[in-house]
Amino acid sequence: MEPQSPSGPPTIVDIRITPIAFPDPPLLNAVGCHEPWALRAIIEVDCGDGLVGLGETYGDASHLAVLRTVAPLLIGLDPFRTEYVKSVVDGLLGTVDAPSEKLGPSGGMGPEKVSLRVFSAFEVACLDVQGQAIGRPVHDLLGGRVRDAVPFSAYLFYKWAQHPGDAPDLFGAALDPAGIVAQARTMVQKYGFQSIKLKGGVFPPDVELDAIRALREEFPTLPLRIDPNAAWSVETSRRVAAETQGLLEYLEDPTEGLAGMAAVAETAGMPLATNMCVVSFDHIPEAVDRGSVQVILSDHHYWGGLRQSVRLAGICETWGLGLSMHSNSHLGISLAAMTHLGAALPQLSYAADTHTPWQLGVDVVERPLTFVDGAVPVPMSPGLGVRLDRDALARLHENYLRQGITGRDDTGYMRRFHPDFNPTKPRW
Amino acid sequence: MEPQSPSGPPTIVDIRITPIAFPDPPLLNAVGCHEPWALRAIIEVDCGDGLVGLGETYGDASHLAVLRTVAPLLIGLDPFRTEYVKSVVDGLLGTVDAPSEKLGPSGGMGPEKVSLRVFSAFEVACLDVQGQAIGRPVHDLLGGRVRDAVPFSAYLFYKWAQHPGDAPDLFGAALDPAGIVAQARTMVQKYGFQSIKLKGGVFPPDVELDAIRALREEFPTLPLRIDPNAAWSVETSRRVAAETQGLLEYLEDPTEGLAGMAAVAETAGMPLATNMCVVSFDHIPEAVDRGSVQVILSDHHYWGGLRQSVRLAGICETWGLGLSMHSNSHLGISLAAMTHLGAALPQLSYAADTHTPWQLGVDVVERPLTFVDGAVPVPMSPGLGVRLDRDALARLHENYLRQGITGRDDTGYMRRFHPDFNPTKPRW
Repeated sequence: MEPQSPSGPPTIVDIRITPIAFPDPPLLNAVGCHEPWALRAIIEVDCGDGLVGLGETYGDASHLAVLRTVAPLLIGLDPFRTEYVKSVVDGLLGTVDAPSEKLGPSGGMGPEKVSLRVFSAFEVACLDVQGQAIGRPVHDLLGGRVRDAVPFSAYLFYKWAQHPGDAPDLFGAALDPAGIVAQARTMVQKYGFQSIKLKGGVFPPDVELDAIRALREEFPTLPLRIDPNAAWSVETSRRVAAETQGLLEYLEDPTEGLAGMAAVAETAGMPLATNMCVVSFDHIPEAVDRGSVQVILSDHHYWGGLRQSVRLAGICETWGLGLSMHSNSHLGISLAAMTHLGAALPQLSYAADTHTPWQLGVDVVERPLTFVDGAVPVPMSPGLGVRLDRDALARLHENYLRQGITGRDDTGYMRRFHPDFNPTKPRW
Repeated sequence: MEPQSPSGPPTIVDIRITPIAFPDPPLLNAVGCHEPWALRAIIEVDCGDGLVGLGETYGDASHLAVLRTVAPLLIGLDPFRTEYVKSVVDGLLGTVDAPSEKLGPSGGMGPEKVSLRVFSAFEVACLDVQGQAIGRPVHDLLGGRVRDAVPFSAYLFYKWAQHPGDAPDLFGAALDPAGIVAQARTMVQKYGFQSIKLKGGVFPPDVELDAIRALREEFPTLPLRIDPNAAWSVETSRRVAAETQGLLEYLEDPTEGLAGMAAVAETAGMPLATNMCVVSFDHIPEAVDRGSVQVILSDHHYWGGLRQSVRLAGICETWGLGLSMHSNSHLGISLAAMTHLGAALPQLSYAADTHTPWQLGVDVVERPLTFVDGAVPVPMSPGLGVRLDRDALARLHENYLRQGITGRDDTGYMRRFHPDFNPTKPRW
């Protein structure tokens, strides 16, 4: 028998996991092209009496299967005891590494822990429950906000004008420097972003550098980044770093692996950032020993939730590493979670990535958080501060059932149109 | 104008800092002897309407002065925003190193951050406020409990029978193996401790090893530790480590400095623990590079509070270091804080130190937490779960005003009776 707190803690009485699909533009990257539908899973941790916490995570079939295996074990637990919830998830899943392809090209590519990805979805929902139960925003559970708005970066992609067979989408094509600059102009005008990231690894580096230089000309004061998803050799990366000295605030994942990144870092004049070679706590000791990276892009979806992301930030501070934030295609629950986390992290030293503009207003929450001058004002309402739009959830779940994609396959999709496409790295 | 949460956040309206003194037995260590009075400062963070959070910290004059300088800056702040409170403290105190003598021989001896020691006292009180405001125990603010009781270790000291001129105290003398074993028997009987630490550095190592062997004979199954507070040379430490192979669960601070500890660790068969050469986040990178220590004794009083201690635990987990907990002379607010922290740390791999038995039931709280089978059952009431005993506080403050000690000086006190006492290290 355990003593009870006076009010009696809430208890998880039900967990609902709903896979959804939403339209995704034909964004290009080093391993192919985004398919017409992006997948997510929406988590509802229900504690009864209308107290429901929200989570958002990957929607591929294997992740869904693990989420569904774990969920029943969490019924009856106290949502305030997230470390205990983590121990239950760890107990079931152990320290198994996830297959490296599971997160796709802009997620972690190295081995990482299935248990942390699974726990994360439930942890965010538990924190949402906690905040609602006590009438405080989630950032107050993480040490409170240190800023009133969390800055995000414009996230530019090379893209086709439309998915083959579809009508042109609202963004149009971006396949050269002029297209990238036009895309940036649209994004900066609409959202007020004050830094810009270009997803590279699509064209030869010199072509992509032309786009970077065109961005610099158009936006003389905005910090710029490029992320070729490790499509370059060490030699190419060193050359690009030398040629972009003074042009980039950081260079993200130019090449693969801790050794390769360390070799590039030796000569690069700017910090190297990663969400590919350091995607798990296991990777950090070797990364700091080698000096492979100077900035880690955290992502609560695979680092194990918001408190594990705080842990990562504390490590970055201790070893003098910068901290930024990675994003996959996501909707408003993830944006809220990223915002609460970013609000509470003194160590966040760069504007975070977000795919929000690419989702064209589609969402599962009633009133998504909005951008003001490129930053999301920190919500002050209890919990995550977003409510599920049940009609939207039903529609997006219908999409999921109808469209038939069950996992991300950028390479397979690209090969439907370019059968000889070969993403083997290093490409350049 | 910032948006307000619906209930309106609490606000710090007053901070009271009360220095106190309580009787301390003549405990011996490498640098001298505990004086007849131990000092602490009791912090009350008052948010009005009876909402008062408690903190307990060092009571030496220079620390008191800094606490009193900082406190007025915190009036009007939201106690949920502890990271912001920290930024205010950091802004005032910067990253100044504390003089190394400030914590005395069993506190950190290396340079450490004044700001973290000052912030810690206020952070614990803010967490107490938070827990009371939301009706949840403090451990729920740190991820929730992962255990129902936090194990502590018997903390044995060589000691005189009494302070010179006083009547013998209840513990009696412990100046040889028989005295140490008798002391251990008393402690284990009364508190149920299931591991034992001996403060060494008082007699030559071989004499102290006789005490360890006598403890092993008396308590065949209890884990044993010895802590000579760096009184030994590297050579002596290596010899002692070789001779105590299989006898000690860890060897604590045998010698000074990260280089010395690394040299001992090279040949020692047991983990080396420290609360002397790693007392600040700054020290950790070099410590892990050198392999100086395998266990860190955290202490929220100088690591910067409970959440910074969680940060330390996350670093220990990432680098595969063990985690234990250090203690100075303390009363019931610190014991409660240590218990809430220990409850929430999955990484706590050893029983924590505590001086509680040496304070002979003197306390500033109404119903101090108690020990059952050597562990403190985790409180489930809101906040820290202890209430200030105002009569006791007044009495202990009277002690402070009357007794005249304003800082810890074990060496000066020893020299009153042994003028030739020389604590220069290494002594052996």
